[in-house]
Amino acid sequence: MLLDDERLDYLLAEELRIIQSPSVFSFSLDAVLLARFAYVPQKRGAIVDLCTGNGAIPLFLSARTEMPIIGVELQERLANMAKRSIDYNGLSHRIDIIQGDVKEIPAQLGIEKFDVVTCNPPYFPAHEMSDKNISEHMAIARHELHLTLDESIAAASKLLKQGGKAAFVHRAGRLIDIITAMRANRLEPKRVRLVYPKAGKEANTLLIEGIKDGKPDLKILPPLIVYGEDGEYTEEVRALLYGSR
Amino acid sequence: MLLDDERLDYLLAEELRIIQSPSVFSFSLDAVLLARFAYVPQKRGAIVDLCTGNGAIPLFLSARTEMPIIGVELQERLANMAKRSIDYNGLSHRIDIIQGDVKEIPAQLGIEKFDVVTCNPPYFPAHEMSDKNISEHMAIARHELHLTLDESIAAASKLLKQGGKAAFVHRAGRLIDIITAMRANRLEPKRVRLVYPKAGKEANTLLIEGIKDGKPDLKILPPLIVYGEDGEYTEEVRALLYGSR
Repeated sequence: MLLDDERLDYLLAEELRIIQSPSVFSFSLDAVLLARFAYVPQKRGAIVDLCTGNGAIPLFLSARTEMPIIGVELQERLANMAKRSIDYNGLSHRIDIIQGDVKEIPAQLGIEKFDVVTCNPPYFPAHEMSDKNISEHMAIARHELHLTLDESIAAASKLLKQGGKAAFVHRAGRLIDIITAMRANRLEPKRVRLVYPKAGKEANTLLIEGIKDGKPDLKILPPLIVYGEDGEYTEEVRALLYGSR
Repeated sequence: MLLDDERLDYLLAEELRIIQSPSVFSFSLDAVLLARFAYVPQKRGAIVDLCTGNGAIPLFLSARTEMPIIGVELQERLANMAKRSIDYNGLSHRIDIIQGDVKEIPAQLGIEKFDVVTCNPPYFPAHEMSDKNISEHMAIARHELHLTLDESIAAASKLLKQGGKAAFVHRAGRLIDIITAMRANRLEPKRVRLVYPKAGKEANTLLIEGIKDGKPDLKILPPLIVYGEDGEYTEEVRALLYGSR
């Protein structure tokens, strides 16, 4: 079941396993934070996770809701890893992985059909690709080579019904761009949470959720500090990673 | 020197006094935070504080720089308090108080002549004026009766030279409005600091600084927590209020 340097890792807080590869793709803390931050429907509603990578967010979300989840991933290799992980965990009746281009996905899956969209998009502009040693898989996942922030927000909005929710994780420095693009795509930002690597440091990561055609009313949630003074994860991050739902 | 119920209060961290009145106007913690947050020029450059109230921000800033400061206040009664405080502290050679409408001030003082603008504008929409018992002075200072957020940002931008800095304090929930208005007025947001009443609570206040015609590059500074678990000011806030510069 495992290819090349792939490993079968634990998805820590859940009784799930996930296929990862140091050279191809491993999920990040940011994916965990987004999967915990996003609203998920409990009784009805369908979820799409864009830029799903090896399927970490759908797997995490599957522990928070019984509702169907579709993960969309451009890269065949990563989509294949995600599918094998989902099969391994016996979740293929609830999670679908589609290999495809996020920009084309609303036309394929249907416009205004979904209740929740999550997305952990490529973070870095294409021109910032300084590390020539990373694999093409990593480069596509991390850099805006095939999908820009604006394009991912536009796709999320098209998928959502009115009143549906889109949640994104991105670099904190993109706050203004993300807010601007959300409003331009009918996604009114409602909840923001800033993630700081340590107390006293600048924020490096941003969680944001908007409602399609929602009324302006932004809440800025308490700061999330990742590491304590001792260099270990804070209690809150440990609970998100290893704790209960 | 004191009228009605006015008091001569200490401006805590500085060896300065300020005239306040419980029924007319008293400065808030937000004014202190803005006066500490804003960049101030040291060797040359002129500063304008819009919506200066009883002059707290110019007084605080005068302890951080020798550069000239102009405070602009619409209300004659408040401008008069500010002038008397500045005289009392022997600072009338460095601080000018102008009674006037912020919207008209750029035409009066000159377009693109200033290096720094600070502004602690009215926070609440006019229609949210629920408390009928507050004085007209308080109502005008707190509510957008004579000046909207957009108008204060537009005035700040007009006063500033290219490369000049504008710093605002406002309610955290207005983050999107303030960013949108800043960008619409050539003020590129560069530094944001969110103020949380307590750890684990949502942010209630926002400090933001932009540079006129600056390049996009936003930093989100460490969170500022006002009260500790004991209900007392945190060490950082105590230092801002009572500590050294």
